[in-house]
Amino acid sequence: MRELKNEYDVVILAAGDFPTNETAIHILRTAKHLIACDGAVEELLRMGIEPEVIVGDGDSVSTATKVKYQSIFHTIVEQEDNDLTKATKYALQYFALKGQPTFCFLGTTGKREDHTLGNIALLLHYYKCLNIVPTMVTNYGWFTVSQGKTTFASFPHQQVSVFQIGGKCLESEGLKWELYPFSELWQGTLNEAIEYSFTINSDSTYLVYQTHKPKEYGLE
Amino acid sequence: MRELKNEYDVVILAAGDFPTNETAIHILRTAKHLIACDGAVEELLRMGIEPEVIVGDGDSVSTATKVKYQSIFHTIVEQEDNDLTKATKYALQYFALKGQPTFCFLGTTGKREDHTLGNIALLLHYYKCLNIVPTMVTNYGWFTVSQGKTTFASFPHQQVSVFQIGGKCLESEGLKWELYPFSELWQGTLNEAIEYSFTINSDSTYLVYQTHKPKEYGLE
Repeated sequence: MRELKNEYDVVILAAGDFPTNETAIHILRTAKHLIACDGAVEELLRMGIEPEVIVGDGDSVSTATKVKYQSIFHTIVEQEDNDLTKATKYALQYFALKGQPTFCFLGTTGKREDHTLGNIALLLHYYKCLNIVPTMVTNYGWFTVSQGKTTFASFPHQQVSVFQIGGKCLESEGLKWELYPFSELWQGTLNEAIEYSFTINSDSTYLVYQTHKPKEYGLE
Repeated sequence: MRELKNEYDVVILAAGDFPTNETAIHILRTAKHLIACDGAVEELLRMGIEPEVIVGDGDSVSTATKVKYQSIFHTIVEQEDNDLTKATKYALQYFALKGQPTFCFLGTTGKREDHTLGNIALLLHYYKCLNIVPTMVTNYGWFTVSQGKTTFASFPHQQVSVFQIGGKCLESEGLKWELYPFSELWQGTLNEAIEYSFTINSDSTYLVYQTHKPKEYGLE
């Protein structure tokens, strides 16, 4: 059963909207390996959290911070990848990770919409090409990537969107509207879980978005 | 030359992040035809702006507002389309629009990321299937849709992203990194305009994102 966990092998904080959701903050505070993109560092330090590594060109960081944390500052000049990808590749290269490691990405949405769109699309790329299990937790919900038949933990009336294009088979059990092979990204939005789990089956990779539990259902 | 205009045949306000950008607010205040999705109405009214039509199921509106504005409230029960598409189809059906009308979409991003992603993808759908020219203005930039060879007004160092998948030809002049036919959405992000215009050529439809002018370049 796929569910939103509290623990991941690696947590990466990007410079989008800073996490305010309870689960996201818990993940940030208890991370085994925490990498921060440099645009997010100052706010992270104000929360009293020190990352293991800072990735970026240092443009968005004060000189004081840069001097104090120079030993963990990792500058990658290469232009092809964005900071999220640089951080992910750093983790895969320098941390002793085993098997198919789990990654949680925080602060990756909000602000510029092209970054949001790019970061969401990168999840599929990381899953397929870097062999990691990515979860992106935002202040409104979370994205996971899967393929084949997967059952997802949910709650009644949880809002669910499924993004996939070009697969020949896409089907579901336990969602209010049955999935079908989509030809456009918007077709999989605005679905809803009926009970405490739903199952998706597909011949291809897909992205699932589930909203956080509203407070009336209890603690997040 | 494609540029961000102040005037559109139809302006539609959705229930994402409310416009704070100067251009977006100007477009909202001076709209010829303004349709508001019901989740955005209360904030619109607080600004002293009355829409021509309100589209939605009325769930997110107070009884007082619903009673006062019942003559312009247009309820569409159908589940297939989201409120943005319902509003767009309403405009095409009831306003006397000529040729290929221009639509400006506001308040369509921020908050739930599945809505953001769905709304951005819908721009391509509206362009191809509803024969309109859509522009989506957010608080950080704007999206436009085009095909073939198009020149876009820009400014030096404007951040530009181009989204397209599956075209055989995608090329550019005047961007810092030359475009090439992308296989994934993230590949077209993080580009930059060199001068006051750039040109894109493609055999297929594409989405262009350009950031708003920072204040140091003068008024937006």
